[in-house]
Amino acid sequence: MKRDGFTLPGEAGYEALTLELAGRWGADVIRDSDGTKLSPEITGAGYRIYSTLCVIREHNAFALEHPDAQQQTFLCSRAVTAEGTSVVIPLMDGYFTEQLVINESPDALRYMQVYDRTENVEVTRGITYADGAVRVQGVTPWHQYTVSFLAYRVWEEINMYNHTTNGWTSEHLRQLDPRHGAAWQFLQDWLENWCIQNPQTDVVRLTSLFYNFVWIWGADLRNRHLFTDWASYDFTVSPAALDAFRQQYGYALTAEDFVNGGRHQPTHMPPTPAKRDYMEFIQEFVAQKARALVEIIHRHGKQAYVFYDDSWVGMEPCGKRFASIGFDGLIKCVFSGFECRLCACADVPVHELRFHPYLFPVGLGGLPTFSEGGEPEKDALRYWRSVRRALVRKPVDRIGLGGYLHLTLDYPKFVDAITEIADEFRRIRALHGSGAPYTLPCRVAVLHTWGSLRSWTLSGHFHETDRHALIHINEALSGLPVDVRFISFEDVLRGALRDCDVVINAGRMGDAWSGGDAWKNPALVAGLTRFVHEGGTFIGVGEPSAVAGYDHTLRLSHVLGVDVDKGERVCHGRWQFEVDRDVPIAVCADALGNNPNILLTGGDTKVLCEKGGVPQMTLHAFGRGKAVYMSHFTVSPESTRMLLETMLYCCGLDPLYLSDNALVETAYYPADRILVALNNAEEETSAAIRTPQGDVHVSLKPLETRIMQL
Amino acid sequence: MKRDGFTLPGEAGYEALTLELAGRWGADVIRDSDGTKLSPEITGAGYRIYSTLCVIREHNAFALEHPDAQQQTFLCSRAVTAEGTSVVIPLMDGYFTEQLVINESPDALRYMQVYDRTENVEVTRGITYADGAVRVQGVTPWHQYTVSFLAYRVWEEINMYNHTTNGWTSEHLRQLDPRHGAAWQFLQDWLENWCIQNPQTDVVRLTSLFYNFVWIWGADLRNRHLFTDWASYDFTVSPAALDAFRQQYGYALTAEDFVNGGRHQPTHMPPTPAKRDYMEFIQEFVAQKARALVEIIHRHGKQAYVFYDDSWVGMEPCGKRFASIGFDGLIKCVFSGFECRLCACADVPVHELRFHPYLFPVGLGGLPTFSEGGEPEKDALRYWRSVRRALVRKPVDRIGLGGYLHLTLDYPKFVDAITEIADEFRRIRALHGSGAPYTLPCRVAVLHTWGSLRSWTLSGHFHETDRHALIHINEALSGLPVDVRFISFEDVLRGALRDCDVVINAGRMGDAWSGGDAWKNPALVAGLTRFVHEGGTFIGVGEPSAVAGYDHTLRLSHVLGVDVDKGERVCHGRWQFEVDRDVPIAVCADALGNNPNILLTGGDTKVLCEKGGVPQMTLHAFGRGKAVYMSHFTVSPESTRMLLETMLYCCGLDPLYLSDNALVETAYYPADRILVALNNAEEETSAAIRTPQGDVHVSLKPLETRIMQL
Repeated sequence: MKRDGFTLPGEAGYEALTLELAGRWGADVIRDSDGTKLSPEITGAGYRIYSTLCVIREHNAFALEHPDAQQQTFLCSRAVTAEGTSVVIPLMDGYFTEQLVINESPDALRYMQVYDRTENVEVTRGITYADGAVRVQGVTPWHQYTVSFLAYRVWEEINMYNHTTNGWTSEHLRQLDPRHGAAWQFLQDWLENWCIQNPQTDVVRLTSLFYNFVWIWGADLRNRHLFTDWASYDFTVSPAALDAFRQQYGYALTAEDFVNGGRHQPTHMPPTPAKRDYMEFIQEFVAQKARALVEIIHRHGKQAYVFYDDSWVGMEPCGKRFASIGFDGLIKCVFSGFECRLCACADVPVHELRFHPYLFPVGLGGLPTFSEGGEPEKDALRYWRSVRRALVRKPVDRIGLGGYLHLTLDYPKFVDAITEIADEFRRIRALHGSGAPYTLPCRVAVLHTWGSLRSWTLSGHFHETDRHALIHINEALSGLPVDVRFISFEDVLRGALRDCDVVINAGRMGDAWSGGDAWKNPALVAGLTRFVHEGGTFIGVGEPSAVAGYDHTLRLSHVLGVDVDKGERVCHGRWQFEVDRDVPIAVCADALGNNPNILLTGGDTKVLCEKGGVPQMTLHAFGRGKAVYMSHFTVSPESTRMLLETMLYCCGLDPLYLSDNALVETAYYPADRILVALNNAEEETSAAIRTPQGDVHVSLKPLETRIMQL
Repeated sequence: MKRDGFTLPGEAGYEALTLELAGRWGADVIRDSDGTKLSPEITGAGYRIYSTLCVIREHNAFALEHPDAQQQTFLCSRAVTAEGTSVVIPLMDGYFTEQLVINESPDALRYMQVYDRTENVEVTRGITYADGAVRVQGVTPWHQYTVSFLAYRVWEEINMYNHTTNGWTSEHLRQLDPRHGAAWQFLQDWLENWCIQNPQTDVVRLTSLFYNFVWIWGADLRNRHLFTDWASYDFTVSPAALDAFRQQYGYALTAEDFVNGGRHQPTHMPPTPAKRDYMEFIQEFVAQKARALVEIIHRHGKQAYVFYDDSWVGMEPCGKRFASIGFDGLIKCVFSGFECRLCACADVPVHELRFHPYLFPVGLGGLPTFSEGGEPEKDALRYWRSVRRALVRKPVDRIGLGGYLHLTLDYPKFVDAITEIADEFRRIRALHGSGAPYTLPCRVAVLHTWGSLRSWTLSGHFHETDRHALIHINEALSGLPVDVRFISFEDVLRGALRDCDVVINAGRMGDAWSGGDAWKNPALVAGLTRFVHEGGTFIGVGEPSAVAGYDHTLRLSHVLGVDVDKGERVCHGRWQFEVDRDVPIAVCADALGNNPNILLTGGDTKVLCEKGGVPQMTLHAFGRGKAVYMSHFTVSPESTRMLLETMLYCCGLDPLYLSDNALVETAYYPADRILVALNNAEEETSAAIRTPQGDVHVSLKPLETRIMQL
């Protein structure tokens, strides 16, 4: 196998191992990692070289000389109960002071806010700050008070993670804010210089750029992770940013716009208008500064790839400004199929996946990988199974690994597994060479608050968001032979439904995925009503279209034929029903929820699954279209098949090139008349695959990828 | 045993049986029932005689001559989707037309309303009504439209129930509205005449008076009971009532104030201000008319007892006007302890319980009682077990039965069971003769929207409201040796907490039992904060003090040390915890819920029970007081004991006169130094009961009531 499409993490001191594995895995690129270096013996071996760079964090000396250039965040103190007419509020109570220190500058104190949380009003008088605490005079006894304030982040979060997880003991790294004038000049100069000093580097692997996802740590080990949001913008803030925002947008943001009573503004909740503005503001800033750095790298004849997973905030790969930055490649670390699709859909020349497990003793979830009790080859194959089905739908260009290569020495099965995966990856990528695989005539739109900005991902990895039905839906869709797009409520109002056959809305009442207040817009409700009435399919999961204040909890209850009772209908009788066995959808009851509060809104709603006498999956004809309700959705081969059969049935589609076995997925490449069958089971299985020429019968080995010429 | 405190349903044709059972059960009163008559042989046998009278429904001839005198209700049509710019809405689609017919009079049509439910606005133009349908011109395509309108109720609901449940075939009875001038004169004359015609009657047993609880039936047998609310006021409405309301209150009510988008205004939800006004208006009217009828009865030397369970709306036994009506007795049918306490707490001379099962072939739940498969003696003993523990706390004066006496002929075990129950009732009643039983120094306030107006009951029987934690709490409290009161949020603002040691708030977010928007009042939150901080105990169940729009879902989260996540805190870390085994409360995990969305707000909250890693019961010290959270509460002997131990622990009380066995409850009557032990188990059991003189050890037979002189 030639050297192609594989990025190997090299490691100085293990030169022979590096070159041996480069050969076995067919690497054409060698990279360093956070914590490893490459030696001349490696960089001179004829491979392309990626160098990992975290631009904002390698400059402790500068940071200590310019403490005001360090990055910041808003924090909200714990609430304190006033026992009299004055109250003292210690600001840092509960926060990890190795990460966070109060910004006591006059500029920052201007943005400090005291709130009466019992009354939900700001207190503006009688406030004095000293020694890390605020005293407020003239408060109302027995009310709760908080202080919101700016804090410097004095320990870069990925470095903090590596210290605490992997036992690192080196100096705590700090991080600079590119909005600080002197820091920005320093960073540009430093990058310029770095490029000059590193002629061996072909690709600068930016990991990522400026602002980390939000990770606020607590002082108490029993509550270490106070707030973790892979897509929020809290860590971009500073007095300078706020002042610039006010100048540009004509109104001022306050601490409360960020801390929101201590709840912050999680990506899982709909944003306020102010947050939307602020996101635009930051995205514009990040794109502009990123472009400047990419230009430096290009000027030195190198390429700039960006790693999407650490300090990537403000440059969403499907955001409208991403392409304008000029990156030459996007690298996405993946556990799952949806992450693969997220990478594949970005407008950038090269798409690369960084596979898991990372070559570290323990994995992200805290379980052992390359250490006692770990079985990294099993992890790799499990992730590969999820990724493979997405790769047959949409190609990416490269794969790779990261971490300490020497850790593989004790895990020869892992080395074998990666050899096999790398070869299979190249075979699958080659299938796309003559054109795209056959897709059912079924255009699926996933409808939520963020639309295409958050295509495929909610925020973070699967296991970090797995309580949300939508990530399960996205994961199921990532390998299905349908056309998938992500649309926002604004897109619907602009006519996006004209290009859709199926709309999916999956979330919990009030969250960003269901949509919250967006459903108060009658035009949105009317638009979807019309869409289904005229023949479209609506699939609602959990509490789709739910918002308080109307005659039903679900604004599309008339379309779905079901509603969710929030207590207002406890006196209403329930329709008796029998479970319908005639609809040709294989129901996967385990994937559904067990919600006692679902009710039928009419006698013509078919119940496909019930639990405890309560419908959990239903089908409702509405006009010329159909609507399906599922109380929840947990991804599995069987539930993925159920979702596919739901779309086939509702859209009246021919199951062409599909297998009759939920465990076997397929793809057909018409240009080369190649049929691929994927066994998603760890056991042997067989299937009949429907083709225009008749059924193709296959028997497949565990996890086999069978590529057949028709 | 002398004739005392027992009301027997007599039956013409079964005179010997009547007199025999009167003797065995110690009856001093014989009554007729709905569907039975008494013969002269019975009425002349020396017993006091109750005659059952449903004042408003025995007058079909008058009703047919004066159709506008019939009672009414507002209905909301099914919503219809507009496919173009006009829409036709059939009003009665889905309604049971044997019960309900459109009121087409101009007076009623004035109150008709068309709503655009998609936009949530009233449509006031382009509306024409004809032949049971409304046509609306100029509507917005793809919006949903409803019509709200007045309908006559042409079949009295209890009669309708008896026809459909017990196979009655007699003429459908109608009902008159006492607000109609001619009807009111007719009803008074008729009652006057009835009293003259029935000299043998000692007590007129009014069952009940004017307005039935709300029971709207559907056309489809698969959805017969569209809306059932034992405490709502929908059935009191008419153009005359609405006009009078406007005159008295200075503003007009609309159909929407009643139908509320088809949701109506269930008692389980907080009332709008307009509904509160309307309830006052109806209560005043009912009291005034009831007083007039009672005066007629009194003038004829008879007594007037009222049966609380059918047409009782507007005269709540704990309402402020009940005593003013002048009833001589209140009769309450009971399955449960809380109903017993509801009866006992009314301000009226005589309190009587009508026991279940009713002497009918099938019971209220639709299961057989006096028919194939029925075991009425077991039913009777099961209800008695619940009632007995309430009777040892608060006395009532009388008990009795109702229905067809001849049905007991085939059930001799039932006759024996009632003999035993009647004797035991008299023994327990006698215990109260010298004074009240010992009560722990623990004043418990159940806090909800309705306060004392809905003391003990939510609305309806236990099995009709058993999804609400509060009815379980009330049932548990009904037999506990603590002082119980029911307070509203307004009561708290008026200082009611000064007389409380424990406050319980138990409900679902937004419902009347949790409180909904009442919790937006900072004074309420501050009042309870202060109450606990100064030493009080707060017990929150389910979603206590929950309302949207503040920093936490539970407004008392700082007191409770827990919060409920509605999706806003999915990015927040969770406190790790170990379950505390040192707190001396025997946790009954089965009684609690399994809510995955509960989180600790601090590290000092003790977890007493967890499920799936999520706290389900917690204890939190706050100031000098304590707060306990339970995710749900299902009543059982074990959970009742848990509730008692929670109060003992939080209030620091000595468990005086309590047993060490959850199955054995006790009461101590200090005036006579009598200790009572109740075995709530169907097996033999034993217990040690703590007294100042040392433990009393008892061994009890199944369900035994042991009365001991200390």
